[in-house]
Amino acid sequence: MDKEKTIRILYPQWQGGNNRLYPLGSKLLEWLAPESKLKLITIPVKEPPISEKEFKQVKLENGIVYRKDIIESMIEARKIIENENPDKIVVFGGDCLVSQIPFDWINEKYNNNVGILWLDTHPDVKTPNDYTNSHAMVLGNILGEGDKELSSLMKSKFSPKKVMYGGLVEKGLTDQEIDVINRFKLRIASPESLKDNSELIENWIKDENITNIAIHLDLDVLNPDLFRALLFADPMPEFNWRENVPFGKMTLNQISRVINDVSSKSNVVCLSICEHLPYDASNLQKMLASIPILNE
Amino acid sequence: MDKEKTIRILYPQWQGGNNRLYPLGSKLLEWLAPESKLKLITIPVKEPPISEKEFKQVKLENGIVYRKDIIESMIEARKIIENENPDKIVVFGGDCLVSQIPFDWINEKYNNNVGILWLDTHPDVKTPNDYTNSHAMVLGNILGEGDKELSSLMKSKFSPKKVMYGGLVEKGLTDQEIDVINRFKLRIASPESLKDNSELIENWIKDENITNIAIHLDLDVLNPDLFRALLFADPMPEFNWRENVPFGKMTLNQISRVINDVSSKSNVVCLSICEHLPYDASNLQKMLASIPILNE
Repeated sequence: MDKEKTIRILYPQWQGGNNRLYPLGSKLLEWLAPESKLKLITIPVKEPPISEKEFKQVKLENGIVYRKDIIESMIEARKIIENENPDKIVVFGGDCLVSQIPFDWINEKYNNNVGILWLDTHPDVKTPNDYTNSHAMVLGNILGEGDKELSSLMKSKFSPKKVMYGGLVEKGLTDQEIDVINRFKLRIASPESLKDNSELIENWIKDENITNIAIHLDLDVLNPDLFRALLFADPMPEFNWRENVPFGKMTLNQISRVINDVSSKSNVVCLSICEHLPYDASNLQKMLASIPILNE
Repeated sequence: MDKEKTIRILYPQWQGGNNRLYPLGSKLLEWLAPESKLKLITIPVKEPPISEKEFKQVKLENGIVYRKDIIESMIEARKIIENENPDKIVVFGGDCLVSQIPFDWINEKYNNNVGILWLDTHPDVKTPNDYTNSHAMVLGNILGEGDKELSSLMKSKFSPKKVMYGGLVEKGLTDQEIDVINRFKLRIASPESLKDNSELIENWIKDENITNIAIHLDLDVLNPDLFRALLFADPMPEFNWRENVPFGKMTLNQISRVINDVSSKSNVVCLSICEHLPYDASNLQKMLASIPILNE
């Protein structure tokens, strides 16, 4: 076999979470990642509106915001990946929805034989009936539910037996979310169960004979008091997220250990890192942009 | 007159604050600054020890830590600046001490006719009798006090009348600090006085006829609850800084306004930005470095 080809993708999509911080978040993620000689490919994404007024005027498009933009980027992402034909993919997102096309493509490549570890505080199985931001629907789309149109972009099929959550907070799940999780019998490793070891996930890999795995790392699986580049650590929130939505309980060390344990038991064919919202870097950037001597 | 020449300096010094986060802080600052065609020059600074054990074994060198390294970099910094002979300098630090040589050089260039606006929660006039980290001594050095050896590197003379603090928190000052401030009659604009306007600073510029000005921006002048890339927002502090040392009260918008107001009243010949400690970026970077697929 030829040497395996890994590509890195910068996917600065922000429309799925409707927050203008995602593009900087994805670029900063890439900047912080270990240096690499791998090709870095950027998925074209429309720039967010600069004016606050225009940003707030967003309209629903058949139940979700920015549907058209999102689908355009997803179609483009698939073309780009197909053209590259990699064996493995790293994705620097962007909102959670950026995982869908890379996961689908790689699963097709490996003959529908890829498992999914979904490291996330939230289940991401909502539908347009429940919410307007499509980043909360991505795992639903992947499993054939979520948003019908977004889901119809899937070409491969994932076995729900080969899908597991890590770090999910069950307290606060809605009835709709519980229904999806129960119907698909999705396994869950709670933050508490992953505190000292990755046993539950390792057992699942063994039980289901998961030889290839795609890992979705939604950074909001992390405790926002310890890692603050997250929605739940917005220093000037317009909406009190923490009081209304469950927030993360895991540490970066735990996530590192989980991913390393998984990497030693299965072939990691895709890693998608999402929801990096660096408020401090963005606020500092805006301040620096305002200073005359820095614009010479 | 020929077109003025502005240079940008990356000065990743960490030894003055004895914290290994400064090099990343300075590089991230530069990355976040508005893009520019100006030359970026890096001052050589020894790498921090990787091992925690070695890092903790630091010894005092005549009252301060890493004296030799610091002086070497300061001498090198002067050589580099002299060689470039700029009209204006932007410094991305590093700990506070990185301001000394650029300020001194530019003051010499403008015939000892440069004022200093010191935006900082702390007065930076300590001596090796009071503390072991030389970043707390830099304004003392500039005024001929602080640490004798570091101060002896000064070639120009600043008039204390032309030195003013912005954002300084007076509650919690030590007797030694009060003594220096009183002897030199240094003006102070408190965080409260700068809340809605920059009048106190504008009056000082007018009263003292400050035509050229160097601005030291210690980011810890900021409120650490709103901007967290600061010592006072360390998510896992080994020492409770907030209970023992005054912390910042200003916002990025206020700092932007102050610097813009100053820029419209005086010629900003140097801006030195220091003490950027991006804990979240650093912790994320370490986690990313640990993941196998990111090291392919």
